[in-house]
Amino acid sequence: MKRMYTGKTKDVYELENGDYLLKFKDDVTGENGVFDPGANTVGLVMEGAGRAGLRLTRFFFEKLNAANIPTHYIDADIEKATMTVAPASVFGKGLEVICRYRAVGSFLRRYGLYAQEGQPLDAFVEVTLKDDARQDPPISKSALEMLHILSAEEYADLEKLTKQISQVVKDELSKKGIELYDIKLEFGRLKKDGQVVLIDEISGGNMRAYKDGVYIEPLELEKLMLAGE
Amino acid sequence: MKRMYTGKTKDVYELENGDYLLKFKDDVTGENGVFDPGANTVGLVMEGAGRAGLRLTRFFFEKLNAANIPTHYIDADIEKATMTVAPASVFGKGLEVICRYRAVGSFLRRYGLYAQEGQPLDAFVEVTLKDDARQDPPISKSALEMLHILSAEEYADLEKLTKQISQVVKDELSKKGIELYDIKLEFGRLKKDGQVVLIDEISGGNMRAYKDGVYIEPLELEKLMLAGE
Repeated sequence: MKRMYTGKTKDVYELENGDYLLKFKDDVTGENGVFDPGANTVGLVMEGAGRAGLRLTRFFFEKLNAANIPTHYIDADIEKATMTVAPASVFGKGLEVICRYRAVGSFLRRYGLYAQEGQPLDAFVEVTLKDDARQDPPISKSALEMLHILSAEEYADLEKLTKQISQVVKDELSKKGIELYDIKLEFGRLKKDGQVVLIDEISGGNMRAYKDGVYIEPLELEKLMLAGE
Repeated sequence: MKRMYTGKTKDVYELENGDYLLKFKDDVTGENGVFDPGANTVGLVMEGAGRAGLRLTRFFFEKLNAANIPTHYIDADIEKATMTVAPASVFGKGLEVICRYRAVGSFLRRYGLYAQEGQPLDAFVEVTLKDDARQDPPISKSALEMLHILSAEEYADLEKLTKQISQVVKDELSKKGIELYDIKLEFGRLKKDGQVVLIDEISGGNMRAYKDGVYIEPLELEKLMLAGE
């Protein structure tokens, strides 16, 4: 088993059969000990965060598979904090695709002249480049195409999948009385046929979720979502 | 004559007949005494910069009018450093529309992971919000529409006009052996019928121009462009 990549919150290995294995770590993004899903630095270590993230990821990926939404997910081993996935490659050096239902975070920092904090947004999709040195800059569809990061067809797939996936997550949260403000997804091309699929994970660290107006930390979200599952 | 607006490089007045009068100032954007067309601060005062900017603006606006490209231009008085224009209102609180032929400036600062400095770009159009406090953030077509800053039809007009206008400027510079790297334009809606037209100015302060690989300062550009006119 060969280590392919060491990430901020997980490591990636290649298995003998060509599939990839994701190993979830207990590191959480944030700054100065405060969790922030938009941060580029590992700000704290939360005991059990890896397994909690994986449990929630498995929960959502199984919902998505049941809904015939393409993902890289194969299976998960909670005890070992690992997930087996179909091999896929990222677009360029990696993109983050954000779906927004309320104006908070970087959207508000950029467009605060025109948007009120918490203002409803209609599943607004935007893309940022994964580039720590340049603070993950936002990038338009036309710039993505011009820089050959993805094609117009791939962008259309990515936008459509983002809205479908985010709606599934939003609906699941809603069943527990939790409101999804925004969510950050990653996509890739399947190695076998180039199909655009959801990759990485879907856990508390990928989203901002609120209950009765109060922000819910990732570990708490996992408990609320999986109680009774 | 009523002062409507005090800008960094010009002031705007309303005339008795409803037209607007732009008064060009000798202030130039930049930082620490160095000219930078992308800067938000007035970095230096250049004697004669206002009149030079106006002469070049008149030159380009008259070319555009001759080519039937809609602008707010009516006429100019070089001695008084004033330009009379048809009244128009900006989109939202003002946009800057950039057309890029080479990767430099803020494009490179954002997308340097994917672009080489000076790499040719095919008249790539992007929009930024005029918002000093938020460092003029880039904004996509979909975000502009969602925030009701402009409509899809207006965006299409603005993009088409940007490419047409930039090509006219590029061609004029090219006749003098000068290469246009990028240019920053402003658009508005004509008060009388809402038509999308070019507003503000087109001078050295709006563009990056190079001759034999050497950057040309705004005042020098005006001299080179208007020699013999």
